[in-house]
Amino acid sequence: MPIEFRIETARGTARAGRLLTPHAEIETPVFMPVGTLASVKGIAQDTLEELGAQIILGNTYHLYLRPGVETVRRMGGLHGFMAWPRAILTDSGGFQVFSLNELRKVTEEGVTFRSHLDGSSHFFSPESSMEAQIGLGADIIMAFDECTEFPADRERMRASMEMTARWAARSKKYFEEHKHEVPWNAGSGKNHVGTAAFGCAGEREVAGAAAELRSAGPPGAAVPTQSLFGIVQGGMDRELRRESALRTIEIGFPGYAIGGLSVGEPRELTREIVESTLEHLPADKPRYLMGVGTPEEIVEYANLGVDMMDCVLPTRAARHGLLFTSEGKVSIKQARYAQDQGPLDPGCGCRVCQRYSRAYLRHLYASNEVLAQVLNTIHNLSFYLDTMRRVRHSIRLGEESRFSSSVRSRPEP
Amino acid sequence: MPIEFRIETARGTARAGRLLTPHAEIETPVFMPVGTLASVKGIAQDTLEELGAQIILGNTYHLYLRPGVETVRRMGGLHGFMAWPRAILTDSGGFQVFSLNELRKVTEEGVTFRSHLDGSSHFFSPESSMEAQIGLGADIIMAFDECTEFPADRERMRASMEMTARWAARSKKYFEEHKHEVPWNAGSGKNHVGTAAFGCAGEREVAGAAAELRSAGPPGAAVPTQSLFGIVQGGMDRELRRESALRTIEIGFPGYAIGGLSVGEPRELTREIVESTLEHLPADKPRYLMGVGTPEEIVEYANLGVDMMDCVLPTRAARHGLLFTSEGKVSIKQARYAQDQGPLDPGCGCRVCQRYSRAYLRHLYASNEVLAQVLNTIHNLSFYLDTMRRVRHSIRLGEESRFSSSVRSRPEP
Repeated sequence: MPIEFRIETARGTARAGRLLTPHAEIETPVFMPVGTLASVKGIAQDTLEELGAQIILGNTYHLYLRPGVETVRRMGGLHGFMAWPRAILTDSGGFQVFSLNELRKVTEEGVTFRSHLDGSSHFFSPESSMEAQIGLGADIIMAFDECTEFPADRERMRASMEMTARWAARSKKYFEEHKHEVPWNAGSGKNHVGTAAFGCAGEREVAGAAAELRSAGPPGAAVPTQSLFGIVQGGMDRELRRESALRTIEIGFPGYAIGGLSVGEPRELTREIVESTLEHLPADKPRYLMGVGTPEEIVEYANLGVDMMDCVLPTRAARHGLLFTSEGKVSIKQARYAQDQGPLDPGCGCRVCQRYSRAYLRHLYASNEVLAQVLNTIHNLSFYLDTMRRVRHSIRLGEESRFSSSVRSRPEP
Repeated sequence: MPIEFRIETARGTARAGRLLTPHAEIETPVFMPVGTLASVKGIAQDTLEELGAQIILGNTYHLYLRPGVETVRRMGGLHGFMAWPRAILTDSGGFQVFSLNELRKVTEEGVTFRSHLDGSSHFFSPESSMEAQIGLGADIIMAFDECTEFPADRERMRASMEMTARWAARSKKYFEEHKHEVPWNAGSGKNHVGTAAFGCAGEREVAGAAAELRSAGPPGAAVPTQSLFGIVQGGMDRELRRESALRTIEIGFPGYAIGGLSVGEPRELTREIVESTLEHLPADKPRYLMGVGTPEEIVEYANLGVDMMDCVLPTRAARHGLLFTSEGKVSIKQARYAQDQGPLDPGCGCRVCQRYSRAYLRHLYASNEVLAQVLNTIHNLSFYLDTMRRVRHSIRLGEESRFSSSVRSRPEP
């Protein structure tokens, strides 16, 4: 009884539906803000709730190093630790091991790498990644994969894809044997605290979603637990992607991700691989495209039939003063905004656009005030979440093509 | 019709009352959070409202350099610029000129100093400080004074105190001739925008307080404007302080500040000078002690009869992980909090203590997450503002001595 996915409207390749997880019911397609170290940088959890985020993402690699899985597990998992009652997804740690470690050593068994913090040596395998992710206790966790570098030749792409397939099988095997150990599963038999024990806001929300999942089965049936998603790799080769999809489906997961994209390839190629890979994924399971993208791209991929996306772009760009608006991108550091009394985005209802002027936001950024990051991030997340809200609405109304063109940002003058 | 001050309860030397300014009615004694660059570092204005801050402080020196007075003036003053509808006080710039500039040159005319940002040369005089503060448009502004260094010999303290007295007279003269130029005064004849034009939250609050001030006089009477407070100097010499108080009172201001303390002298001396100076200040005018203090000190000074205080301590300490609680100081970076599932302060109702554990706050700080600064600052400000709320309550109930001892923090183990 891990998750339940219902497609409620399909329009062309796009679909709108609901993903019921132990901690929240998520409307799809959904954009998931990234909260690397159990924090969406600069944003308090109540603000995330106010923005309407139903699911956020944590990075296993970073959390494994700080504060460590055991600390999080003892606090009832990430939900209890960060006092976030809604859904969480963790990645496998694989992507960061590959992107942050030049000295990594990959074997059939797993990956030896050095911490980017202190140089200490660590080892991740499908089993240890699952162990970590079970301890972190996200609603959705990811198989341990190898993210193939770009560019790579076909032989390398094939070998990497096949390793990912073998690691997916090992990930599933370990997960099935240990999933009852999730810290918020009352049946785990371990000491667990967290949301309920600490009395954090939204406690009833947690209990509610869990109860709904429980009541869906017969009395005494499985209690709510995590779900493990498989990841399709295969580099930039459509045929290898197809093969990876089929092998991953054969292992069998409640959801499938497309990994290994946005690694430096041209955007047209990303789109081509996404589109062709989606054809091979089961229509009735959630499809998660990892690590994309711009506001235009998330609309485009949702229209292609992607149900879940995550990206650091809205939060990272905010920290660099790059803001997404209905009128295009705004680089708020520019001197021309110094006396601009208008709101950042006249079309936006977020609390930043409702209250502050561009001149003030520009001043905060130019003065290195921390509030610049806070307000910029609130706006960018609001813009992304609103964009997805409108995508869902347009899918339900069958207006996808009209909407898709209206959000395309104008080039910055 | 600048401000109105009503003492409603006096108990021993302590008094509780109300200070009606053009932008807010302030219950006194009050603690004013410091928002140096038109931002209380890391805290959005709606959060300050939620915390119950009725007045915040801006630093003229910093705002003069960034974003510049003219930019702020065009936005309707600080209220419009930072979208803060409640009261604001600005200092004169004198303290920063003295504390941030080793190469300053003081003459009878004023102070030549170099920007700490780019080394450019600038000049502040009583007149130019008034001009800047009128452009910034705070509800309460401060006379341009010389903050005497510590230690200083008596001759130096006397010369400095006398300069401050002459500068106070010049400050008042310029202010009286130019106060109609405040950017939110409809009679200023200048283009003004800001809170009302920009439609920021709390617009009605602004209009309400202003209307109340207006209606207090006969039809056609003075519209609400700024108030200029005088500053008592005189170093650590009680007799010079008395003389400074008398000379400042002779010039005549609607409120009086005690400046030049917390400059490195022992705390007992601070208290002695405050206590002896207060005796010479008019009982019916607000008394503002600049730049103090710890939670214990603000309680102590309120009980001595101080009505207004400001200090960077709660916000700056928060950024360094030092938190004030009902159980004493907590240095959240310490490893012993790494798995502490309890709230930061069990006696605190702020949104941080209601939601997050010490372990999470410790993790955020140890990981250099920006949310650490945000949450720590919210708690410390909440603790300070709650402390003053309880002081006011205890004065009204006549329980000052009992309360005073109950908030004294235990030494950290």
